Amino acid sequence: MRKIHIILIAFWLSSYLAYAQQEPVDLQMVEKIKEEGLQRSQVMKTAFYLTDVIGPRLSGSDGLKRANEWTRQQLTEWKLEKAAIEPWGQFGKGWDIEKSYVAMTVPYYQPLIASPKAWTPSTNGIVKGKIILVKAEKEEDLAQYKGKLKDKMVLVQTAANIKTTFEADAKRYTDEELAKMVAATPIASSSSSMSPERIAEYRARRALREKISQFLQEEGAAVVISNGRGMHGTYFTSNGASYAPDAKPVLPEMEMAAEHYARVQRLLEAQIEVEIETEIKTRFNTDLTGYNVVAEIPGTDKKLKNELVMVGAHLDSWHAATGATDNAAGSAVMMEAMRILKAVGVKPRRTIRIALWGSEEQGLHGSRNYVKNHFADPETMSLLPDHAKLSAYYNVDNGTGKIRGVYLQGNEALRPVFEAWLAPFKDMGASSVTIRNTGGTDHLAFDAVGLPGFQFIQDEIDYSTRTHHTNMDTYERLQEEDLKQAAVIVASFVYHTAMRDQKLTRKELPVAKAAGTN
Amino acid sequence: MRKIHIILIAFWLSSYLAYAQQEPVDLQMVEKIKEEGLQRSQVMKTAFYLTDVIGPRLSGSDGLKRANEWTRQQLTEWKLEKAAIEPWGQFGKGWDIEKSYVAMTVPYYQPLIASPKAWTPSTNGIVKGKIILVKAEKEEDLAQYKGKLKDKMVLVQTAANIKTTFEADAKRYTDEELAKMVAATPIASSSSSMSPERIAEYRARRALREKISQFLQEEGAAVVISNGRGMHGTYFTSNGASYAPDAKPVLPEMEMAAEHYARVQRLLEAQIEVEIETEIKTRFNTDLTGYNVVAEIPGTDKKLKNELVMVGAHLDSWHAATGATDNAAGSAVMMEAMRILKAVGVKPRRTIRIALWGSEEQGLHGSRNYVKNHFADPETMSLLPDHAKLSAYYNVDNGTGKIRGVYLQGNEALRPVFEAWLAPFKDMGASSVTIRNTGGTDHLAFDAVGLPGFQFIQDEIDYSTRTHHTNMDTYERLQEEDLKQAAVIVASFVYHTAMRDQKLTRKELPVAKAAGTN
Repeated sequence: MRKIHIILIAFWLSSYLAYAQQEPVDLQMVEKIKEEGLQRSQVMKTAFYLTDVIGPRLSGSDGLKRANEWTRQQLTEWKLEKAAIEPWGQFGKGWDIEKSYVAMTVPYYQPLIASPKAWTPSTNGIVKGKIILVKAEKEEDLAQYKGKLKDKMVLVQTAANIKTTFEADAKRYTDEELAKMVAATPIASSSSSMSPERIAEYRARRALREKISQFLQEEGAAVVISNGRGMHGTYFTSNGASYAPDAKPVLPEMEMAAEHYARVQRLLEAQIEVEIETEIKTRFNTDLTGYNVVAEIPGTDKKLKNELVMVGAHLDSWHAATGATDNAAGSAVMMEAMRILKAVGVKPRRTIRIALWGSEEQGLHGSRNYVKNHFADPETMSLLPDHAKLSAYYNVDNGTGKIRGVYLQGNEALRPVFEAWLAPFKDMGASSVTIRNTGGTDHLAFDAVGLPGFQFIQDEIDYSTRTHHTNMDTYERLQEEDLKQAAVIVASFVYHTAMRDQKLTRKELPVAKAAGTN
Repeated sequence: MRKIHIILIAFWLSSYLAYAQQEPVDLQMVEKIKEEGLQRSQVMKTAFYLTDVIGPRLSGSDGLKRANEWTRQQLTEWKLEKAAIEPWGQFGKGWDIEKSYVAMTVPYYQPLIASPKAWTPSTNGIVKGKIILVKAEKEEDLAQYKGKLKDKMVLVQTAANIKTTFEADAKRYTDEELAKMVAATPIASSSSSMSPERIAEYRARRALREKISQFLQEEGAAVVISNGRGMHGTYFTSNGASYAPDAKPVLPEMEMAAEHYARVQRLLEAQIEVEIETEIKTRFNTDLTGYNVVAEIPGTDKKLKNELVMVGAHLDSWHAATGATDNAAGSAVMMEAMRILKAVGVKPRRTIRIALWGSEEQGLHGSRNYVKNHFADPETMSLLPDHAKLSAYYNVDNGTGKIRGVYLQGNEALRPVFEAWLAPFKDMGASSVTIRNTGGTDHLAFDAVGLPGFQFIQDEIDYSTRTHHTNMDTYERLQEEDLKQAAVIVASFVYHTAMRDQKLTRKELPVAKAAGTN
């Protein structure tokens, strides 16, 4: 009996100590947040405006300007303070599509699914005629086309490799996959996922593409048609030219659904004449400035209100759809998190600020410049006063999937903190904390200057297969229950970060980059 | 020792008897067919011509006329005899698309993925302006739109229900599924898969749709836009009007990719003004005749050469793609089977005839009229002389998937015959014989007059999800290895049917239908 007593006491003591050391969680507030976010969600309404109503939000486009205006106004209506469209510097030329039509007319009529590549110019009205296949595996192959392409439409040969898949487009993380992430050890952040051979191959391909473009330009071709990766009428889009104010002129160019592109290519390879008619009208904007949208819930603790917690997501998208999962989803989740916090009446100790970034898709320009303007220059590592004041930045930009946990971004000290904050959301599927980094988006701008910047682990759904940068990244790709869950978790993370006695522990400050590199 | 001897002898004897009763299989010929069909296949080349080169092959269209010409010529080049384009009677109006463009211009520019519904007329040039949402759950709901739709574009509200799927689009039969089919008992052929309630509901919906169409027509709307089932830029197409020479006039109507349709609908439901611009140009042909293409390998047995074995597949398709799996696949497989038989130099006892049917999609018109012209009238069951001469008709029209076995179509007597003929193809995945029927296509025309008409069990692949009747039923959906396998198996079945001492056992002759029903 005595032995059992001692064991019980020891057990109680260890539980107590563990509890005493644990990061505090305001379960009452968590419940309020859940109730507001799950019972009275507005995340789908916000997403509807960002996607269907506002449309594509390419950097510098009218669509992104509308999104800036609308989000600023919406955040103001929700009674956030200091809502503003904040210039971050010079982006470059805005660009909008005013007409996009292309069809095959010979050997028979077939309207073709395609979009102009971003930042490419208009055709000279309606262009009609034969299309010529240009095959070039090396620069010298171009010589045979010299003098033959003037005013002609050109299809640049690529391997259109469309294979029927027997796997689902959409998936969620399995418990095993999540367990593996939790058990993972850090990966050196400098390591690239590409081998040197693949990098060299990639560069060679890009160089050849540039040579081909230049050749077609010099030869005076009328329009270029190229292959949009993807299938079933879904295709991935990209830019076809620089948005720089002094960008070299390029030809009008369309990216086409692979099934339609490949049909024209197969016909041309079989020496069967194909005629195309097309009309592209695009417009360049004169305002070269880039913008972010910001708004705040001011802090209330006399000592801490000058400190900051930030949430953000990029508002810009690609141009062929409405950027629903990339990244109206993240923007709507972050806006909803702010709305929830206001609705439940938080009085945060630190100020909570939302930033909706511009020009993420062209290289995280909005967030990088914001960080440079407000916190630190990653080149010189000269710090501005606010660098000391930011506790954390949270980002959502991995699509519509619900949150399954969080990436520590190499900051092991925060594991018990994030574990504690996730604990109330275990029944909603979010409990995994991994030391791993995740890349490719705006939290990197903060991480680059030693500020704690985080992204969440999100279920992939059909991000890579169907939505990310495609012409089918539309409202219907959004998973309502997932977005609600994400907004609730983000709101809770932000709240706890704002209420914590201490700012979040930081990693070591990075060293300044050598001058001239980037 | 003696006991074992007796057992061995008994075993040998039973094997011998089983063998002796078995349907003979010419394994040497099977090997030749496999070699020709697998090593020197032309099935993909044939499919390329039928799809990419010839294009959509809607009944009565220029595309189907090109397909008729090309297949007749190709079969002639392969040295088949009596290759001919054979009229089967009056089909109705042919119809081709000459221009198809539609875009949203307000609240922002977005080209929309859509096709005119088959047999709908042209717009009056370019039509631009507001689009109006017409919501009607019953006829009376239409009253509110009276006088408001003149020259307007109209979107007819439907439930656009696009759900992300976590299942693969494409699949093959599992061993368990095949075993179940083999073990199945006959299903009464008259049983419908729809409950009376569902049939009533379906009819009510169709009646409402007709009322709406008539109302829009009377009100003088300019264009109708409706929802094409499907997702990711894949949508299912259909006819929007009758092809009858005296068909009632209808409005120009487009079927739109669900993502694009639903976006416009959501905007209109939210009272946000949407403007559309569209231009549709379609053309009706004056030749009302329907055609099939036929060709033969003549029989060589003095007594049997007037008897027939037939293979067939429908050559017509829907109009928004090139009808690759529905049914260039089946046409190419049947043509390839004939090519293989010629190439291996068969001297069939019975005549082997291929028929490539027209107008299957509108109700098996080509095959039904062929049967009526050559074999029997299913209404009266009055038989023509050739009715006695056809041993079997084999059809392929379930997409690109390889053959996994054959449907007995209720004719149990043929199970051992088909099992024997399939035996050499077990290692290629085809061994299942099921008593089950399969419906929906041209073998039914033969079955209806008591002639043995069969279809094969084929792997589904993505037939229901992505290809069948969609705008993405294109060349890339074709599975090369599957089509080769199918052609080889069909060639072998046809060969053995042509060489057999007896014609295939028939089911009981159907009774004549009551006059006036159909």
